[in-house]
Amino acid sequence: MPDTATPDSTGTDAAAPYEPTGRTVPSRAGQRASYDRELVHSILDEAYLCHLGFVRDGAPVVLPTLFGRVGERLYVHGSTGSRPLRDTRAADPGMAVCLTVTHVDGLVLARSAFHHSMNYRSVVVHGIARTVTDPEERRVALDAIVDQVVPGRSADSRPADAKELAATAVIRLDLEELSAKVRTGGPNDDPADLSLPYWAGVVPLARGYAAPVPSDDLDPTVPVPDYLTAL
Amino acid sequence: MPDTATPDSTGTDAAAPYEPTGRTVPSRAGQRASYDRELVHSILDEAYLCHLGFVRDGAPVVLPTLFGRVGERLYVHGSTGSRPLRDTRAADPGMAVCLTVTHVDGLVLARSAFHHSMNYRSVVVHGIARTVTDPEERRVALDAIVDQVVPGRSADSRPADAKELAATAVIRLDLEELSAKVRTGGPNDDPADLSLPYWAGVVPLARGYAAPVPSDDLDPTVPVPDYLTAL
Repeated sequence: MPDTATPDSTGTDAAAPYEPTGRTVPSRAGQRASYDRELVHSILDEAYLCHLGFVRDGAPVVLPTLFGRVGERLYVHGSTGSRPLRDTRAADPGMAVCLTVTHVDGLVLARSAFHHSMNYRSVVVHGIARTVTDPEERRVALDAIVDQVVPGRSADSRPADAKELAATAVIRLDLEELSAKVRTGGPNDDPADLSLPYWAGVVPLARGYAAPVPSDDLDPTVPVPDYLTAL
Repeated sequence: MPDTATPDSTGTDAAAPYEPTGRTVPSRAGQRASYDRELVHSILDEAYLCHLGFVRDGAPVVLPTLFGRVGERLYVHGSTGSRPLRDTRAADPGMAVCLTVTHVDGLVLARSAFHHSMNYRSVVVHGIARTVTDPEERRVALDAIVDQVVPGRSADSRPADAKELAATAVIRLDLEELSAKVRTGGPNDDPADLSLPYWAGVVPLARGYAAPVPSDDLDPTVPVPDYLTAL
């Protein structure tokens, strides 16, 4: 721990890397793994979609869902009637989950089929998801999930009312046991393959948004907000 | 089953929808679920990345990985040393997995925070992954994984040699127990919210590729192939 680091209010050292564990140390390509807190946060914050894994009747289930990050906690919400959220409520102390976020940055084309790859950044979080019951934490979490998709949007929409809140379950997963994995750069061809007549390099992915499409029933005097043009 | 449908060589009716099961019928938003074979194939074929879930020591693990589709089979490959592929080989008759593919098509902004959503298309496949040992099936699968990323690329690269093949494990998951889920359209605001002064509509996602970046060590006389400019 560097001398300059100061623990934050939760006792977490905001500069220290996450602690590797048996299941967060990869069995191969270990040079791609990282426990750097800032890197992990940046990968999470660039995303709003995760793939949430849990076990039902002994078999894995992986569902795409929105998430939000608040400090060292991730939040996922859903209908109180949805199965993973019901399962979490029923489990004591919570439900074992794995929450994964992946960005593909480029396609890596090598001369050999074997060395084809992707440039990507991913975070895999392991832990126990717990139902959030505190009203203030639920409010903060729901705002965070909306703002993770469109920063600034939660303050520019109608907050959930009592009936909507009653229909919404929120679960929390602490950022404790996790790793990031990053691949960058060009193909790693074998020296003997370099003179083969195949194109080799990287095709970068272009990401972005098209122009916002207003609802048919939108009052035409409502302008496109700045936080959307900034996306 | 329509009268005109004829089973293909595997005995699968190529036009019939997939058969829903207890775990592929959603507990809510059932109107978004589909078992249409053509829709499922189209969602899978537009992707090359999936999130593969499995259970290790009773806990879920979700990893991003490439896949390829050949008819009614999905293939995933990896190092023979990687844990999920080792686990599959060790398990008899295979390893329970859940393979999920998701496309986000648009951000759906409603006047109410509660009705915020995403337009998306996803496929969730449940089943038993089995190690592929037949050399010809392995070859077809490895080509399919490369061609899923860049159609046409497997024929324009050096095929795997014996040593590379020995280091590569391939697993197969049959398309039997699965569902697609699709959301389209604008926000579903409550009638009482329509006059609120918040922008509402959809922000479509733009997807694409930037110009291919050749390797530093690429012979400058090798042109960018047509299948890359066509991406």
